[in-house]
Amino acid sequence: MPVESVSTDNALPHVAGFEHPLRVYYEDTDAAGIVYHANYLRYMERARTVWLSSLGVEIDQLVKQYAVLFAVRSLNVQYLRPARLNNHLIATVWPERLGGASLELDQRVFHEGELLTSAHVKLACVDAITLLPKPWPQVLHELFNAWKMS
Amino acid sequence: MPVESVSTDNALPHVAGFEHPLRVYYEDTDAAGIVYHANYLRYMERARTVWLSSLGVEIDQLVKQYAVLFAVRSLNVQYLRPARLNNHLIATVWPERLGGASLELDQRVFHEGELLTSAHVKLACVDAITLLPKPWPQVLHELFNAWKMS
Amino acid sequence: MPVESVSTDNALPHVAGFEHPLRVYYEDTDAAGIVYHANYLRYMERARTVWLSSLGVEIDQLVKQYAVLFAVRSLNVQYLRPARLNNHLIATVWPERLGGASLELDQRVFHEGELLTSAHVKLACVDAITLLPKPWPQVLHELFNAWKMS
Amino acid sequence: MPVESVSTDNALPHVAGFEHPLRVYYEDTDAAGIVYHANYLRYMERARTVWLSSLGVEIDQLVKQYAVLFAVRSLNVQYLRPARLNNHLIATVWPERLGGASLELDQRVFHEGELLTSAHVKLACVDAITLLPKPWPQVLHELFNAWKMS
Repeated sequence: MPVESVSTDNALPHVAGFEHPLRVYYEDTDAAGIVYHANYLRYMERARTVWLSSLGVEIDQLVKQYAVLFAVRSLNVQYLRPARLNNHLIATVWPERLGGASLELDQRVFHEGELLTSAHVKLACVDAITLLPKPWPQVLHELFNAWKMS
Repeated sequence: MPVESVSTDNALPHVAGFEHPLRVYYEDTDAAGIVYHANYLRYMERARTVWLSSLGVEIDQLVKQYAVLFAVRSLNVQYLRPARLNNHLIATVWPERLGGASLELDQRVFHEGELLTSAHVKLACVDAITLLPKPWPQVLHELFNAWKMS
Repeated sequence: MPVESVSTDNALPHVAGFEHPLRVYYEDTDAAGIVYHANYLRYMERARTVWLSSLGVEIDQLVKQYAVLFAVRSLNVQYLRPARLNNHLIATVWPERLGGASLELDQRVFHEGELLTSAHVKLACVDAITLLPKPWPQVLHELFNAWKMS
Repeated sequence: MPVESVSTDNALPHVAGFEHPLRVYYEDTDAAGIVYHANYLRYMERARTVWLSSLGVEIDQLVKQYAVLFAVRSLNVQYLRPARLNNHLIATVWPERLGGASLELDQRVFHEGELLTSAHVKLACVDAITLLPKPWPQVLHELFNAWKMS
């Protein structure tokens, strides 16, 4: 059991992270010839969706079974280098901290091993109707927490 | 009363049309330096929304009061000239034909008087939950029909 | 050699078509709970890009080597059934007709074997700077023409 | 002359800020029934473009005359309350700090006086071709600096 797993502050251990491959299409670029800055957030959300799916959590089922969804609470994004048309990118997901109704992720976008964009993303679990904060369904909390043991 | 208004085939008369001003931002352009082709459809939908609003029809109220929404059934789009970053455009709405649960529009996008894109758009009235076709609420049908008399 | 390949009118033979898998993310949907109508055009353009890539044609290299790009000239789109969040879709590309500076495609989007959206897309080869029509580079024309023999 | 204007640290004085009106269309929303989180960044960029325009700076002319453009270097975004279909919003621009090749802005989005989203946006002046940092053209620097005196 790694040292990180006994921390008491709910910090999740740094793991290699989930990797999601992407390709830059015309729709993603702008007249500056590069990927439009807001579109990296779309890439990151695609990576989160596929990562959740890899854990057995489907975003449409979350709504149907638990009446909850993930809301983005805050973003801290650094843009380091631009991506260009037809680039093959990798978007990563790296869980950092789990709360009773929140989850913080480190997400990055790479091109040929070079870091292009880096973000700290804070998500909240919210009621699908009221959009007010709601504790994670127990199965989700256990699933996220399991990383700490892995 | 214009001749067109007595036609029996539900063809709406050609009127000058509603005009909605737009501006091209970086988000609308692509790496070819021009507006991305799918984004003209967004411009046209913005023009439809503001046109409906000018008639007293608010798209969010349509759902709340009548449980219906407008669904795009078909599109026929001609792309003639490109729009570029920071261009000031005009998107128009021109009603052509009213059915019991459908509405056909001629929509165009202009830049400095030049036609850039032209579309024939067929909309359907659908139930907001099932998305199945549903007759226009009477008040909407009367509103659309009133054009024929104007 | 199939009968179609000896047609003299440049009609390309109907082939099974290229298939590109897609997934519906939150970014693709709208408040009606379904994929926003303009986003199917993005799906179709992604499918075209990957299809060209499968033929050895990279869209960024087209610009760099031949100073041309594909411009959408016209679209005819039928919306039959909606796609929903997290659906796994297939977008297809089916070449129909090759001209000296144009290419017409039949493109469709399916969900679990059901046709959702169908489009006839006319593309033009244009100069990457002036955006005026330009004959296909010979290698591209030969490549597209080769389908007629296959 | 306000006290802030003599500060030596290049902090720009807090002013009421530029206000840009916006409306939420279907294209902006997602299946959760609210504005998709990345689209607030589009709203903020629209507000920046119109604000620059109000100062006499046109983004397309920047590229043509000075061969520079604004690149987003970092974003810090807080999402407080959701916007919904057909809401009328206000996006604001509030200059905070001017550097030799950078500009930091406080940007917010409001609905009926309520703060929905708040962001700290760091922009860089970059060469339009190489995208490498480049000092502000003198006229732009003077223009931005003039706020400190106002």
